[in-house]
Amino acid sequence: MTIKELITHAQTDVANTLNLYFDQSLNTDETIKAATHYSLMNGGKRLRPFLVYATGKMLGADKQDLDVLAAAIECIHSYSLVHDDLPAMDDDELRRGRPTCHIVYGEAHAILAGDALQALAFELIAKHNFNCSAQAQVKMIAELAHASGLQGMVAGQGLDIAATDKVITVAELERIHKLKTGALISCAITLGALCSNNVSQNTLENLATFGYAIGLAFQVHDDILDVEGDTVTLGKPQGSDIAANKATYPALLGMLGAKEKAQNLIQQAHAALANIDADTSALASLANYLIERDH
Amino acid sequence: MTIKELITHAQTDVANTLNLYFDQSLNTDETIKAATHYSLMNGGKRLRPFLVYATGKMLGADKQDLDVLAAAIECIHSYSLVHDDLPAMDDDELRRGRPTCHIVYGEAHAILAGDALQALAFELIAKHNFNCSAQAQVKMIAELAHASGLQGMVAGQGLDIAATDKVITVAELERIHKLKTGALISCAITLGALCSNNVSQNTLENLATFGYAIGLAFQVHDDILDVEGDTVTLGKPQGSDIAANKATYPALLGMLGAKEKAQNLIQQAHAALANIDADTSALASLANYLIERDH
Repeated sequence: MTIKELITHAQTDVANTLNLYFDQSLNTDETIKAATHYSLMNGGKRLRPFLVYATGKMLGADKQDLDVLAAAIECIHSYSLVHDDLPAMDDDELRRGRPTCHIVYGEAHAILAGDALQALAFELIAKHNFNCSAQAQVKMIAELAHASGLQGMVAGQGLDIAATDKVITVAELERIHKLKTGALISCAITLGALCSNNVSQNTLENLATFGYAIGLAFQVHDDILDVEGDTVTLGKPQGSDIAANKATYPALLGMLGAKEKAQNLIQQAHAALANIDADTSALASLANYLIERDH
Repeated sequence: MTIKELITHAQTDVANTLNLYFDQSLNTDETIKAATHYSLMNGGKRLRPFLVYATGKMLGADKQDLDVLAAAIECIHSYSLVHDDLPAMDDDELRRGRPTCHIVYGEAHAILAGDALQALAFELIAKHNFNCSAQAQVKMIAELAHASGLQGMVAGQGLDIAATDKVITVAELERIHKLKTGALISCAITLGALCSNNVSQNTLENLATFGYAIGLAFQVHDDILDVEGDTVTLGKPQGSDIAANKATYPALLGMLGAKEKAQNLIQQAHAALANIDADTSALASLANYLIERDH
């Protein structure tokens, strides 16, 4: 299968898993339920679910276990986008060409929908009857909570806000992205590995190196697209980082330097995969795709 | 010990547990860290931690396990207050006489601090080495996530917003409160029970009845205090529910009817405790305290 076909599979599987949950008659507020569903079904790339599936399948994990983990991590990613788009944060009215959650449902409901999505991520994992051990299940929850919170994604968002309108170094920018997007991307790979049996320490370490490298490459390429992409393909205004006075890799390294950095990171990612004794082809294709995509 | 001494103990224990976490050198944004700590150390009653401790001690749970559960559930409660106070929600500038999180740290950081607190709740439970089984640990996480999310607290907040400025029935008001505050109060009791060994189905069922009754009584009494309390003792403006056009028990049942309802609920709570073969005195004292407190 091509990388695009693999991505489409992950998109379909994660949508089916999430819709199964929403098809249940829930004792809830229907507006919040609609707002959470709207935010989840936003036509996203599903990069994190893809990584859960690709890693887990490579290491022999159970498909239904991976479905749950993929859905859970997408809930976390989705909540972060809903809250990021709020007027008090990035104040974005469009995401992938569609009105953002607070534009459709109002700010109060968008805040609550984000909160509900975060809880749902942990509920999905904690309620699923995994094929792996309860100890592994607890460990997966710990990894997801850590990557999402005060020492992961949320910290990165806070540092990102603090860095706006300021001159920062490449090392500082790297720290922001390592936390803001890297933590959850690495976590997706870790979750796929943790629910597989008998994964060696060597494999886990090389997957961590891989996750770190592609997470950063993803962000460098995003910054490049913000300069070179076009608004229709991106689904958001081209040049929005520059307009928001955000530090970017092209601004700090020059466009050539940024592209070279992305290439080097992907080479590091491939080198890490080469140390893993399994069929790493899906992860390798994804790494290449990340710095070739046009949106 | 008197109920006030027991409550003070719970307050001290939960503060110590949370401070232990914050005393660590965290790889985070210091502003977010400060905002989460500020929001947690807000002089709250610590009703939910008290219920974790009282239930767990009664059933022989390990003290350190209870510390973690008490801290975790307070993180959830605390995040809900931070988000509730936001301008797009209740727009409150004071809580317990102190400026709310967004007044001190700004809206963006308050949204992120709330998000971090929710993740922290699950991280604390998932990273702790419990004396009970990993299966019980997973079950506790599932209970907390369910009580917090789309079929618990968040749903109640959504329904509460929808009911503002509308005429609703007592049954509808009860549904709102059962979700908005009742779910987490009941969950505190459930967590205390789940990390104890050999708790019978009979005990769990009577604890559920007890939790439901005191959760609702707590809210009815809150509504009564909003009319009869004074602003300084309450730490928030007396009459704020009426000013916000919120449905309340005194408005729907009359003041006498509301007081009678609170009394009846506490009688139901005591009846449930009478069926439990353990020293239920701390829970019984708490039930009485809930409808006698002046703030």
